[in-house]
Amino acid sequence: MAHPPGSAAGHAGDGPLSPLIHGRVRLLILCELMAAPGGRAFTELKQRLDLTDGTLSVHLGKLADGGLVQIRKEFVGKKPQTLFRMTGPGRRRFTRYVEELRGLVPGLAPGRAPDASA
Amino acid sequence: MAHPPGSAAGHAGDGPLSPLIHGRVRLLILCELMAAPGGRAFTELKQRLDLTDGTLSVHLGKLADGGLVQIRKEFVGKKPQTLFRMTGPGRRRFTRYVEELRGLVPGLAPGRAPDASA
Repeated sequence: MAHPPGSAAGHAGDGPLSPLIHGRVRLLILCELMAAPGGRAFTELKQRLDLTDGTLSVHLGKLADGGLVQIRKEFVGKKPQTLFRMTGPGRRRFTRYVEELRGLVPGLAPGRAPDASA
Repeated sequence: MAHPPGSAAGHAGDGPLSPLIHGRVRLLILCELMAAPGGRAFTELKQRLDLTDGTLSVHLGKLADGGLVQIRKEFVGKKPQTLFRMTGPGRRRFTRYVEELRGLVPGLAPGRAPDASA
Protein backbone atom coordinates (compact mmCIF):
# COMPACT_ATOMS: atom_id res chain seq x y z
CA MET A 1 0.00 0.00 0.00
CA ALA A 2 1.25 3.47 -0.86
CA HIS A 3 1.73 5.80 2.10
CA PRO A 4 -0.47 8.89 2.10
CA PRO A 5 1.35 12.19 1.55
CA GLY A 6 3.17 13.41 4.61
CA SER A 7 3.30 10.13 6.44
CA ALA A 8 6.55 8.97 4.89
CA ALA A 9 8.70 11.34 6.93
CA GLY A 10 9.71 10.62 10.45
CA HIS A 11 8.22 8.96 13.47
CA ALA A 12 4.67 10.22 13.12
CA GLY A 13 4.56 8.36 9.81
CA ASP A 14 5.55 5.02 11.28
CA GLY A 15 3.91 5.40 14.66
CA PRO A 16 0.39 4.84 15.91
CA LEU A 17 -2.88 5.01 13.97
CA SER A 18 -2.06 2.64 11.10
CA PRO A 19 -3.13 4.27 7.82
CA LEU A 20 -4.68 0.91 6.84
CA ILE A 21 -7.26 1.42 9.60
CA HIS A 22 -7.27 5.18 10.14
CA GLY A 23 -8.03 6.10 6.51
CA ARG A 24 -11.42 7.76 6.74
CA VAL A 25 -13.51 5.56 4.44
CA ARG A 26 -11.73 2.43 5.72
CA LEU A 27 -12.45 3.40 9.30
CA LEU A 28 -16.15 3.83 8.47
CA ILE A 29 -16.22 0.39 6.78
CA LEU A 30 -14.45 -1.23 9.74
CA CYS A 31 -16.90 0.35 12.19
CA GLU A 32 -19.76 -1.22 10.20
CA LEU A 33 -18.07 -4.63 10.21
CA MET A 34 -17.06 -4.52 13.89
CA ALA A 35 -20.73 -3.98 14.72
CA ALA A 36 -21.83 -6.96 12.58
CA PRO A 37 -20.18 -10.18 13.86
CA GLY A 38 -21.93 -12.22 11.14
CA GLY A 39 -20.60 -9.94 8.41
CA ARG A 40 -22.27 -7.66 5.90
CA ALA A 41 -23.07 -8.06 2.22
CA PHE A 42 -21.43 -5.78 -0.34
CA THR A 43 -24.74 -4.19 -1.33
CA GLU A 44 -25.65 -3.62 2.31
CA LEU A 45 -22.33 -1.87 3.05
CA LYS A 46 -22.69 0.17 -0.11
CA GLN A 47 -26.12 1.42 0.91
CA ARG A 48 -25.29 2.05 4.55
CA LEU A 49 -22.19 4.08 3.71
CA ASP A 50 -23.55 5.56 0.48
CA LEU A 51 -20.39 4.72 -1.46
CA THR A 52 -19.90 3.84 -5.12
CA ASP A 53 -19.09 0.24 -6.13
CA GLY A 54 -15.60 1.32 -7.14
CA THR A 55 -14.73 3.11 -3.92
CA LEU A 56 -16.09 0.35 -1.71
CA SER A 57 -14.32 -2.38 -3.75
CA VAL A 58 -10.95 -0.66 -3.57
CA HIS A 59 -11.11 -0.18 0.19
CA LEU A 60 -12.47 -3.67 0.93
CA GLY A 61 -9.67 -5.07 -1.24
CA LYS A 62 -7.05 -3.24 0.78
CA LEU A 63 -8.60 -4.37 4.06
CA ALA A 64 -8.65 -7.98 2.79
CA ASP A 65 -5.02 -7.72 1.56
CA GLY A 66 -4.07 -6.47 5.01
CA GLY A 67 -5.75 -9.47 6.64
CA LEU A 68 -8.34 -7.43 8.53
CA VAL A 69 -11.36 -8.54 6.54
CA GLN A 70 -12.35 -11.87 5.01
CA ILE A 71 -14.53 -12.38 1.95
CA ARG A 72 -17.01 -15.23 1.61
CA LYS A 73 -19.24 -16.06 -1.33
CA GLU A 74 -22.55 -17.63 -0.41
CA PHE A 75 -25.99 -18.20 -1.86
CA VAL A 76 -29.14 -16.60 -0.52
CA GLY A 77 -31.67 -18.88 -2.22
CA LYS A 78 -30.31 -19.02 -5.76
CA LYS A 79 -28.74 -15.56 -5.58
CA PRO A 80 -24.97 -15.33 -5.03
CA GLN A 81 -23.90 -12.88 -2.36
CA THR A 82 -20.48 -11.63 -1.28
CA LEU A 83 -20.14 -11.35 2.46
CA PHE A 84 -17.46 -9.37 4.28
CA ARG A 85 -16.55 -9.83 7.92
CA MET A 86 -13.74 -8.99 10.31
CA THR A 87 -11.07 -11.65 10.84
CA GLY A 88 -9.89 -12.49 14.36
CA PRO A 89 -6.58 -10.62 13.85
CA GLY A 90 -8.59 -7.78 12.30
CA ARG A 91 -10.69 -7.43 15.45
CA ARG A 92 -7.58 -7.44 17.61
CA ARG A 93 -5.85 -4.83 15.44
CA PHE A 94 -8.96 -2.66 15.47
CA THR A 95 -9.10 -2.92 19.25
CA ARG A 96 -5.46 -1.85 19.47
CA TYR A 97 -6.22 1.08 17.16
CA VAL A 98 -9.03 2.15 19.52
CA GLU A 99 -6.59 1.96 22.45
CA GLU A 100 -4.12 4.15 20.52
CA LEU A 101 -6.85 6.70 19.85
CA ARG A 102 -7.78 6.73 23.53
CA GLY A 103 -4.17 7.27 24.50
CA LEU A 104 -3.57 10.07 21.99
CA VAL A 105 -6.73 12.07 21.57
CA PRO A 106 -7.65 14.42 24.42
CA GLY A 107 -11.21 13.77 25.47
CA LEU A 108 -11.26 10.08 24.55
CA ALA A 109 -9.58 8.77 27.68
CA PRO A 110 -12.30 7.47 30.03
CA GLY A 111 -13.33 10.05 32.60
CA ARG A 112 -11.52 12.95 30.90
CA ALA A 113 -13.66 15.62 29.27
CA PRO A 114 -12.19 17.56 26.34
CA ASP A 115 -11.30 21.19 27.11
CA ALA A 116 -13.64 23.13 24.83
CA SER A 117 -12.96 26.52 26.42
CA ALA A 118 -11.00 29.52 25.02
CA MET B 1 -7.99 21.63 0.16
CA ALA B 2 -8.02 18.65 -2.18
CA HIS B 3 -10.11 15.70 -1.04
CA PRO B 4 -8.19 12.47 -0.40
CA PRO B 5 -8.86 9.64 -2.86
CA GLY B 6 -12.10 7.85 -2.19
CA SER B 7 -13.71 10.59 -0.18
CA ALA B 8 -15.23 12.37 -3.16
CA ALA B 9 -17.93 9.75 -3.75
CA GLY B 10 -21.13 9.67 -1.79
CA HIS B 11 -22.17 10.36 1.74
CA ALA B 12 -19.20 8.84 3.53
CA GLY B 13 -17.11 11.49 1.79
CA ASP B 14 -19.15 14.43 3.03
CA GLY B 15 -20.14 13.02 6.41
CA PRO B 16 -18.39 12.87 9.75
CA LEU B 17 -14.66 12.87 10.51
CA SER B 18 -13.60 15.99 8.56
CA PRO B 19 -10.46 15.14 6.57
CA LEU B 20 -9.00 18.46 7.77
CA ILE B 21 -8.90 17.02 11.30
CA HIS B 22 -8.88 13.26 10.72
CA GLY B 23 -5.79 13.24 8.46
CA ARG B 24 -3.28 11.23 10.45
CA VAL B 25 -0.44 13.74 10.80
CA ARG B 26 -2.90 16.59 11.30
CA LEU B 27 -4.67 14.68 14.05
CA LEU B 28 -1.35 14.11 15.82
CA ILE B 29 -0.52 17.84 15.55
CA LEU B 30 -3.96 18.82 16.86
CA CYS B 31 -3.63 16.42 19.81
CA GLU B 32 -0.36 18.15 20.72
CA LEU B 33 -1.96 21.59 20.47
CA MET B 34 -5.14 20.64 22.34
CA ALA B 35 -2.95 19.54 25.23
CA ALA B 36 -1.01 22.85 25.23
CA PRO B 37 -3.38 25.78 25.86
CA GLY B 38 -0.48 28.24 25.65
CA GLY B 39 0.59 26.89 22.27
CA ARG B 40 3.74 25.17 21.04
CA ALA B 41 6.75 26.43 19.11
CA PHE B 42 7.48 25.05 15.64
CA THR B 43 10.73 23.45 16.77
CA GLU B 44 9.03 21.87 19.75
CA LEU B 45 6.26 20.33 17.61
CA LYS B 46 8.82 19.14 15.12
CA GLN B 47 10.81 17.32 17.80
CA ARG B 48 7.82 15.88 19.64
CA LEU B 49 6.30 14.45 16.46
CA ASP B 50 9.61 13.72 14.72
CA LEU B 51 8.50 15.35 11.47
CA THR B 52 10.48 17.17 8.82
CA ASP B 53 10.20 20.98 8.51
CA GLY B 54 8.41 20.55 5.19
CA THR B 55 5.79 18.09 6.39
CA LEU B 56 5.05 20.05 9.56
CA SER B 57 4.83 23.37 7.65
CA VAL B 58 2.41 22.01 5.08
CA HIS B 59 0.05 20.57 7.69
CA LEU B 60 0.22 23.61 10.01
CA GLY B 61 -0.53 25.78 6.97
CA LYS B 62 -3.63 23.77 6.16
CA LEU B 63 -4.80 23.87 9.78
CA ALA B 64 -4.28 27.66 9.85
CA ASP B 65 -6.11 28.08 6.49
CA GLY B 66 -8.98 26.08 7.97
CA GLY B 67 -9.15 28.38 10.98
CA LEU B 68 -8.29 25.69 13.52
CA VAL B 69 -4.83 26.97 14.44
CA GLN B 70 -3.42 30.47 14.87
CA ILE B 71 0.17 31.51 14.33
CA ARG B 72 1.93 34.10 16.48
CA LYS B 73 5.46 35.41 16.14
CA GLU B 74 7.14 36.34 19.39
CA PHE B 75 10.58 36.92 20.82
CA VAL B 76 12.20 34.72 23.43
CA GLY B 77 14.99 37.07 24.51
CA LYS B 78 16.30 38.27 21.15
CA LYS B 79 15.35 35.09 19.35
CA PRO B 80 12.23 35.10 17.17
CA GLN B 81 9.91 32.15 17.69
CA THR B 82 6.80 31.02 15.85
CA LEU B 83 4.09 29.83 18.16
CA PHE B 84 1.09 27.72 17.13
CA ARG B 85 -2.06 27.34 19.18
CA MET B 86 -5.65 26.20 18.78
CA THR B 87 -8.23 28.89 18.02
CA GLY B 88 -11.54 28.92 19.92
CA PRO B 89 -13.45 27.58 16.89
CA GLY B 90 -10.65 25.05 16.41
CA ARG B 91 -11.16 23.69 19.94
CA ARG B 92 -14.90 23.45 19.36
CA ARG B 93 -14.46 21.67 16.03
CA PHE B 94 -11.97 19.26 17.56
CA THR B 95 -14.42 18.53 20.37
CA ARG B 96 -17.15 17.83 17.81
CA TYR B 97 -14.74 15.51 15.96
CA VAL B 98 -14.15 13.60 19.21
CA GLU B 99 -17.91 13.28 19.69
CA GLU B 100 -18.22 11.93 16.13
CA LEU B 101 -15.51 9.37 16.84
CA ARG B 102 -17.28 8.30 20.01
CA GLY B 103 -20.54 7.91 18.13
CA LEU B 104 -19.03 5.92 15.28
CA VAL B 105 -16.23 3.78 16.60
CA PRO B 106 -17.21 0.68 18.59
CA GLY B 107 -15.38 0.70 21.88
CA LEU B 108 -15.09 4.48 22.21
CA ALA B 109 -18.55 5.12 23.62
CA PRO B 110 -18.22 5.56 27.40
CA GLY B 111 -18.82 2.34 29.28
CA ARG B 112 -18.76 0.12 26.19
CA ALA B 113 -15.83 -2.26 25.82
CA PRO B 114 -14.74 -3.21 22.28
CA ASP B 115 -15.59 -6.77 21.25
CA ALA B 116 -12.19 -8.37 20.73
CA SER B 117 -13.48 -11.93 20.52
CA ALA B 118 -13.74 -14.23 17.44
